[in-house]
Amino acid sequence: MSGKIESSRKTLSGAYQVILSVDCVVFGYDENDKELKILLIKNELEEFKGKWSLLGDILQSKETLEEAANRVLQFRTGLEDVYLEEVQTFSKPGRHPLGRVITLAYYSLIKIDDYELNVAKLDLEARWFNIKEIGELAFDHNEILAVCHERLKQRLREQPVGFSLLPRHFTLKQLQNLYETVLEVEFDKRNFRRKLKNMDVLMEKDGIQQDVAHRPAKLYAFDYDKYETLIRKGRHFAI
Amino acid sequence: MSGKIESSRKTLSGAYQVILSVDCVVFGYDENDKELKILLIKNELEEFKGKWSLLGDILQSKETLEEAANRVLQFRTGLEDVYLEEVQTFSKPGRHPLGRVITLAYYSLIKIDDYELNVAKLDLEARWFNIKEIGELAFDHNEILAVCHERLKQRLREQPVGFSLLPRHFTLKQLQNLYETVLEVEFDKRNFRRKLKNMDVLMEKDGIQQDVAHRPAKLYAFDYDKYETLIRKGRHFAI
Repeated sequence: MSGKIESSRKTLSGAYQVILSVDCVVFGYDENDKELKILLIKNELEEFKGKWSLLGDILQSKETLEEAANRVLQFRTGLEDVYLEEVQTFSKPGRHPLGRVITLAYYSLIKIDDYELNVAKLDLEARWFNIKEIGELAFDHNEILAVCHERLKQRLREQPVGFSLLPRHFTLKQLQNLYETVLEVEFDKRNFRRKLKNMDVLMEKDGIQQDVAHRPAKLYAFDYDKYETLIRKGRHFAI
Repeated sequence: MSGKIESSRKTLSGAYQVILSVDCVVFGYDENDKELKILLIKNELEEFKGKWSLLGDILQSKETLEEAANRVLQFRTGLEDVYLEEVQTFSKPGRHPLGRVITLAYYSLIKIDDYELNVAKLDLEARWFNIKEIGELAFDHNEILAVCHERLKQRLREQPVGFSLLPRHFTLKQLQNLYETVLEVEFDKRNFRRKLKNMDVLMEKDGIQQDVAHRPAKLYAFDYDKYETLIRKGRHFAI
């Protein structure tokens, strides 16, 4: 870069302008199939004919970027008040074939059972894809997806965000399945359970698993009070 | 929001445009004064007469946002290849008095001794402020500063970024001073040392502290090999 700077300017007239968009990586955990899925829509741009892309839109004049991301998510999924985390901007010149469009990526994590396609409003084809079966996406969306998946893995390892993806009462096997699916690793059963035991953030429930062929397993719930105690002690949630 | 969406658009003509800027929160650790400082420049906008602001500039046509942040930092401090971390966008309509300017905040962390004001090129007054003595800044820069300081605290607690702010060989007292200053907390000396001992990421050096009135303390260095071992074992750096 030239090192030139113009921040001492006293007016904005003539300043370089861009189009700003938001793109949401909507991760859905499918408990039954043990799959991490992504919600994609068919792209309509001539340049990306037949390709799929992330859910996004251009920022409008009276909204913040976060409001724009919420608007997109609500329109496409019918879900309100979904947790959205800002991840990163993507600003390479040339990333959009029609002009300088800079995008801000968010990720969201939902239980796939909670989700219902907002069919009535759908102007574009939309569907869930297993993250292992994603082909070449439109724009730089493969790169955005990869960065957001890394962020999700990090969050899942360091914060108890995964529990919202399970039924309220779950078995340790269900919990391990969730972690293995999202993190794309395999855990030793004994090590995994020891880590959880050491953190002491679960409470055992009275009931046992129903409708299973094998010996029914114990059910657990995440204990927010115990978690608060862990944090107050200066310790961390870490899987 | 209305829930309206236009991502199926096939053209960008008429799309809402904005000015995009970068703002850098440059944190400097001052070992001698035991102070966390911020580099600020005098703002020249009529609306913010006499106020100080973060180092920033408007994105140019041929650069990425990261390149813009590096350009700003290099111009103002003379420092190249400084670690910059993207923190968050700030996009409230009305945050800039002259138009719709959305900014992306970065933070950077440097040893204040390494820094030399790039005086020759300075078009604006610039100086370091103790973070405890920051008044009302221009724009929403107090909010940006607060968000970036939180991010810095989190990083310092979870990753060994602090060691780059100390001399290569340091005493445990120097290390504790650094943590107490940036995190704005006081540590119990024994607990602090026990945490470090448990992580086993320091190596004891042969020399001892020079030129001190009191009994000279042992010197340590951060051991990157030991740190790698810690991480490979699935453990974490955590203060």
